[in-house]
Amino acid sequence: MPAGTSMSGLRRELSDAIGDPDRVSEGDSIRVLHSADLSPNPPRLPDLVVFPTSIEEISAVLAIASEQRVPVTPFGAGTSTDGHIIPLEGGISLDLSGMDRILALRSEDHTATVEAGVLRESLNRAAGPQGLFFPVDPGADASLGGMAATNASGTTTVRYGAMRQQVLGLTVVLPSGEVVRTGGRAMKSSSGYELGGLFVGSEGTLGVIAELTLRLYAIPEHVIAAQAFFADLDSACEAARALVAVGASVNRVELLDGESMRAINNFKQLGLPESPCLFLEFAGSPAATEEDAALAREVVEEYGCSEFAVETDHTARVRLWQARHDITFAIAEAQKGGRLQATDVCVPISELPRAIRAARETADRLEIDVAIVGHVGDGNYHVVHLFDADDPEQARRAKVLKTEIFEEALACGGTCSGEHGIGIGKIDELAVEHGDLLPLMRGIKQVIDPNWIMNPGKVLLPDPPDHPR
Amino acid sequence: MPAGTSMSGLRRELSDAIGDPDRVSEGDSIRVLHSADLSPNPPRLPDLVVFPTSIEEISAVLAIASEQRVPVTPFGAGTSTDGHIIPLEGGISLDLSGMDRILALRSEDHTATVEAGVLRESLNRAAGPQGLFFPVDPGADASLGGMAATNASGTTTVRYGAMRQQVLGLTVVLPSGEVVRTGGRAMKSSSGYELGGLFVGSEGTLGVIAELTLRLYAIPEHVIAAQAFFADLDSACEAARALVAVGASVNRVELLDGESMRAINNFKQLGLPESPCLFLEFAGSPAATEEDAALAREVVEEYGCSEFAVETDHTARVRLWQARHDITFAIAEAQKGGRLQATDVCVPISELPRAIRAARETADRLEIDVAIVGHVGDGNYHVVHLFDADDPEQARRAKVLKTEIFEEALACGGTCSGEHGIGIGKIDELAVEHGDLLPLMRGIKQVIDPNWIMNPGKVLLPDPPDHPR
Repeated sequence: MPAGTSMSGLRRELSDAIGDPDRVSEGDSIRVLHSADLSPNPPRLPDLVVFPTSIEEISAVLAIASEQRVPVTPFGAGTSTDGHIIPLEGGISLDLSGMDRILALRSEDHTATVEAGVLRESLNRAAGPQGLFFPVDPGADASLGGMAATNASGTTTVRYGAMRQQVLGLTVVLPSGEVVRTGGRAMKSSSGYELGGLFVGSEGTLGVIAELTLRLYAIPEHVIAAQAFFADLDSACEAARALVAVGASVNRVELLDGESMRAINNFKQLGLPESPCLFLEFAGSPAATEEDAALAREVVEEYGCSEFAVETDHTARVRLWQARHDITFAIAEAQKGGRLQATDVCVPISELPRAIRAARETADRLEIDVAIVGHVGDGNYHVVHLFDADDPEQARRAKVLKTEIFEEALACGGTCSGEHGIGIGKIDELAVEHGDLLPLMRGIKQVIDPNWIMNPGKVLLPDPPDHPR
Repeated sequence: MPAGTSMSGLRRELSDAIGDPDRVSEGDSIRVLHSADLSPNPPRLPDLVVFPTSIEEISAVLAIASEQRVPVTPFGAGTSTDGHIIPLEGGISLDLSGMDRILALRSEDHTATVEAGVLRESLNRAAGPQGLFFPVDPGADASLGGMAATNASGTTTVRYGAMRQQVLGLTVVLPSGEVVRTGGRAMKSSSGYELGGLFVGSEGTLGVIAELTLRLYAIPEHVIAAQAFFADLDSACEAARALVAVGASVNRVELLDGESMRAINNFKQLGLPESPCLFLEFAGSPAATEEDAALAREVVEEYGCSEFAVETDHTARVRLWQARHDITFAIAEAQKGGRLQATDVCVPISELPRAIRAARETADRLEIDVAIVGHVGDGNYHVVHLFDADDPEQARRAKVLKTEIFEEALACGGTCSGEHGIGIGKIDELAVEHGDLLPLMRGIKQVIDPNWIMNPGKVLLPDPPDHPR
């Protein structure tokens, strides 16, 4: 917060602007709930939490914040994994959970328009009866606005793409309070610079995504899930690489190493073999799905798959994927305490076995107990562990692990983030990966958010660092 | 060109920079070849045509152009349809056809890295023996750099997406001559602002796309093409809408009205029925493809399809799609002379029948003989006709037709351009469609091209119009 800001004055002004003092909170418990996410970054309290319920209210809040140079940190469902929702410089946490209306569901067009706070599972509950679903599936029941903000992806991205591929149109409130609309309802457009794709992945640093028009897809007629078990991690990675190389038609290709399998067994009492595994899914017409599963089975067996367990029962499939989604909590439970670090590199699929071998070796060398899981059909994997951030040696080793995994990924032609975004923790990595682009990114930030009030400390730092603010 | 520019001085400097005077041309015939495209916009000669063969040469040319404020218009294969390659203010036409190397073809990763001047059919010839293909298919054998510049799409976009969805990484030479790289070789990334998606569709106004890393796809095992004929245009549109609504798995859904069918019959002596038609394609495993075609047949028959002609023979299919691709030339041949106007709106699929009915009525009212064709699976259609631009009444009516079709599309939630881009002819439409975004677009242009040397007169005009240049 800028020195000299009158908190009571700001609070009154915001309450007047949105017409409801109960939705402008200074309460300690509410501020604590908006101070931390799932990442290892230390919490920081916002000064105020504001709960808008309309675009007009977001606009009024941002206009006041701009005028007074008060930092604003958008907050969706709080499921971000690299500190995105931590208000590093205090100010306003803008909680969009009250923006939870599904504004339109157009079954003929396979599109929906939603407010930013709508949770992905809520959209799926609404779309299901129309035979449609929204594919992006990061595990957590995140808000769709938050998912767009980090360009989230997940288990089905290998088939359907990430958030950026689903966003047809956005309503964005700019830091000035001005409201703009990108894209539209058509399936494609070449109408001027594609600013929608710029706001997607901008992590709340360029404005507030208030509404989204998203693609939906027909629910596949038939789905087969399969688990392919391997004697070692390397064989599982080689099999994943081969599946992609032969162009197998898959809906999901998820890797869980032995450690991950042990963690989900303990967490959910599943009794699965505790060896490296690919969770696979095939979807389409019955005949096509059977063909796809049979081809995949042939491929993975060439790479030493020792057991190929097929599951067509809906309930059993849901339980299996729920176990996959609970992996973070399962690992947290298995490792008992400390802060969670999850790397997020993504490499070309041909480099996956090499990159994961290197990650495994680094963890072993550093004597860190990690679990490795990933959306490996995309080349995206997470090395997950808990550590005691107050223990300097543990913190140092966690940092070395993260850095070496990133450097290996970069050497393979990969990226520091497949889906979590830069947040607080990858600002240095972004500078290594895309240093040549930073001046352009900063220039664009300066055009759209000239006072740098939006989500300060994430993605980009001002340059020079003593930028007026 | 700025007043006072010494042509001989500029030519010498450019020749020195790229080390080969033969690749800096003032010759009239070469300049004429770089003065016009397929659009109705009047030609304009560049002062010089430069033929770089490396990123370093592009960089040297742009640095000189920036220094001297000389306009630069990138030129790929010259197949743009809204004046993109016309050097409206003279200066340099930067012909990238010499940048025609396929730098890498990674069959395991399903990616290729190419220079910007590589033609899409050349990439397909190289990828084919590896069992891969590049799907974006605008008809013309365009350059991949040019296709990225307009976010081109085409007949297979309903299945595979447009250019933006295929671009994993770009090497871009900025107007200053600086070289930057966006994205990479991984299938997805959330690493900072997605500038690649901004350069895609920027129509040469933000820099020169020099290299691209693109996704490739496995060639489907089995392909079935079908032609579904209808008694009237409206039924064909309703059938297309229904195909998308039921989630039919299709590779291509192309509409050709009776006029288009007559034109391709005359052009290629095909002897097809001359009634409105959907050209369909299904691809995948043999069983799945048969199922998909059977489902589509059921759907279109519900909408009055009177004949469903299936074609599995490869040669016959190629001939059919070639006829579809030749449509522009076929119409030009049928209408004998004048300038070609092809609208490019795209609407939500549920609005397609309404929008095309309105377009047909407008053309009838204006007594313009049009052909209507489109990638209707995406809601994208072109109303095509030739007119005598020197006849004020014909020119007026052509303008009214274009404007009314755009207004109808906008009223339907659509866009002025599905795939051709803004170019010269849709600057006013962009202002109507995305007026709220123009200040941001101009701000971004100003950051990246502060002297407005890149492709002046396309997409954006400076504001205020007397911007120093």
